[in-house]
Amino acid sequence: MASIKDVAALAQVSTATASRALSGRGPVSPDARERVLRASAQLKFVPSANAAGLASGRSRNIGVIVPGVDRWFFAKVVRGISEELLDRGYDLSLYTTGGSHDHQEKVLEDYLLRQRLDAVVPVALELTRRERAHLLSIGRPVVGVGGAMAGVCTVGIDQEAAGALATGHLIGLGHRSIAHITAGTDPNRDFALTGTRRSGFEHAMARAGLEVRPSWLVVSDFTLNDAYARSKLLLASPERPTAVFAASDEMAAGTILAARDLGLRVPADLSVVGVDGHELGEVFGLTTVQQFPERQGARAAALLMQQLGPEGAVGDPHHETVPTEFVVRSSTAAPVRPGPA
Amino acid sequence: MASIKDVAALAQVSTATASRALSGRGPVSPDARERVLRASAQLKFVPSANAAGLASGRSRNIGVIVPGVDRWFFAKVVRGISEELLDRGYDLSLYTTGGSHDHQEKVLEDYLLRQRLDAVVPVALELTRRERAHLLSIGRPVVGVGGAMAGVCTVGIDQEAAGALATGHLIGLGHRSIAHITAGTDPNRDFALTGTRRSGFEHAMARAGLEVRPSWLVVSDFTLNDAYARSKLLLASPERPTAVFAASDEMAAGTILAARDLGLRVPADLSVVGVDGHELGEVFGLTTVQQFPERQGARAAALLMQQLGPEGAVGDPHHETVPTEFVVRSSTAAPVRPGPA
Repeated sequence: MASIKDVAALAQVSTATASRALSGRGPVSPDARERVLRASAQLKFVPSANAAGLASGRSRNIGVIVPGVDRWFFAKVVRGISEELLDRGYDLSLYTTGGSHDHQEKVLEDYLLRQRLDAVVPVALELTRRERAHLLSIGRPVVGVGGAMAGVCTVGIDQEAAGALATGHLIGLGHRSIAHITAGTDPNRDFALTGTRRSGFEHAMARAGLEVRPSWLVVSDFTLNDAYARSKLLLASPERPTAVFAASDEMAAGTILAARDLGLRVPADLSVVGVDGHELGEVFGLTTVQQFPERQGARAAALLMQQLGPEGAVGDPHHETVPTEFVVRSSTAAPVRPGPA
Repeated sequence: MASIKDVAALAQVSTATASRALSGRGPVSPDARERVLRASAQLKFVPSANAAGLASGRSRNIGVIVPGVDRWFFAKVVRGISEELLDRGYDLSLYTTGGSHDHQEKVLEDYLLRQRLDAVVPVALELTRRERAHLLSIGRPVVGVGGAMAGVCTVGIDQEAAGALATGHLIGLGHRSIAHITAGTDPNRDFALTGTRRSGFEHAMARAGLEVRPSWLVVSDFTLNDAYARSKLLLASPERPTAVFAASDEMAAGTILAARDLGLRVPADLSVVGVDGHELGEVFGLTTVQQFPERQGARAAALLMQQLGPEGAVGDPHHETVPTEFVVRSSTAAPVRPGPA
């Protein structure tokens, strides 16, 4: 097997230069880098990342644990983390739990222990006490994305404020009959998002002296399809609300599609507001609270880099709130038919 | 630092048992496994995956290179790969190129060389000759998902057949004025999908003796938003088609939304068919060619496992076609107003 010396000799550079060129760390002229990479490919040289890792105690590898990458929020967070790590020369090990508790436990117990990771980013996971102990037992930095987590730095939006902002906008427009499509209570995935967006809704309604009708608190999963089906039932009832606050943009789009299929005009007959900043919102003219998940992922990665840097830890575990932006489009307006006084 | 012997002593098992429990390979009683994991956490033992990798020559780590995870097809493929690897006890290193050629080159040149991977899955990447050489130079198995790639095993659907199937369905219903929303020609991302879905459309039209009007070949990117905007222009023209074949379900949903906003009924005034099997298709009643990207990802991972197994390689590089399923829903019907003869 070719050694780094063979590569350096073929590329006509010093071993140190060849090492810098292959590791991506330290200055190398573009010309030398090109020669080294070509020599490395020609000799089928495989740099021993394992050996390098043993020497430095670092593998330049960050573990990301996420329910899945096939939901908008998770995919965008992973994208943000991935881009930040690429810029910093770190690799990303992806662990998906599929939202199943068994898989989640397997990932935390077996994989994290087996794999040599410099740090871990759990995304939107609610962990049992035991799972959290496993996560922390590897003794590496952990920065979560999503709700606060005891003993761990986390990054996320203020969910309660997002819910209050969206609801307050509807109240400010004159709506009094407001429904909320909230996400299900799957304890592994959605706990923190839902609880607090919903509590933001409830608090805003209470502050305005408005009633939260039990039948207007509609539980759906986070998909457009389920929100569509449930909104259709809600909006077909004779006692329908004049506005809906949906806990996500995809759910809000489902509500708009259901309203249209029932012959209701948005916003004349029904105002709809969401949370996310999903691309879909543009076509639907959706008013929404944008939460920039890429930025949340990138921020979590940047915090980890700080912890791995020469200064080390960034203080005690805390929850860092990232700002949202409220975008008013055409899906919300004053009610034509005011709700019951 | 605690050693494996310390862990074994605390757990009251042999070192071999402790090693099996921590590696997840080989039989261990649930009780012993639990004791070992607890001891390992208590002693903050970090098993040296690096050292294990050096000894076995295997890191049990598969690299996945993908333009991003925030598009439906890519996210589902990654999900399929991830679940298959989890079942097999392998880790997944995720590399996203962001669709940028610079990033793609950086990933292929620097990262793959630096990281010790057992195998690599490029997803929907078109590689330059130079990039392909880099990919193959690490001397590890490569199985791609998407279009065929010289010198590499690949898994994917028959894009041409998918396009012909969707178009043939419209022709069979009696449509003669059929437009195609095709994806852009970004050479890094969409080449293979588009080229051949579009050629399937063109061949089916030619076989039926139907004209492909240049203005009815609409180039869009793969998003719902862009397809919506371009469909609106297409459908607002006095010479509008009676049917549209869109190259993806998200694009087809954009077309349906544009039709509705123009007061056109689907399918009475316009039939729409897509490709994918996207969840969104259910709400829109979309007729589509389902392509099961999770299965494509899982199949690629399974092929890699075969190559890494005791039997080794699975024959010469070839392209393996996975089957699609055609689902007829309510977005397609015979034209009310027949097109020009």
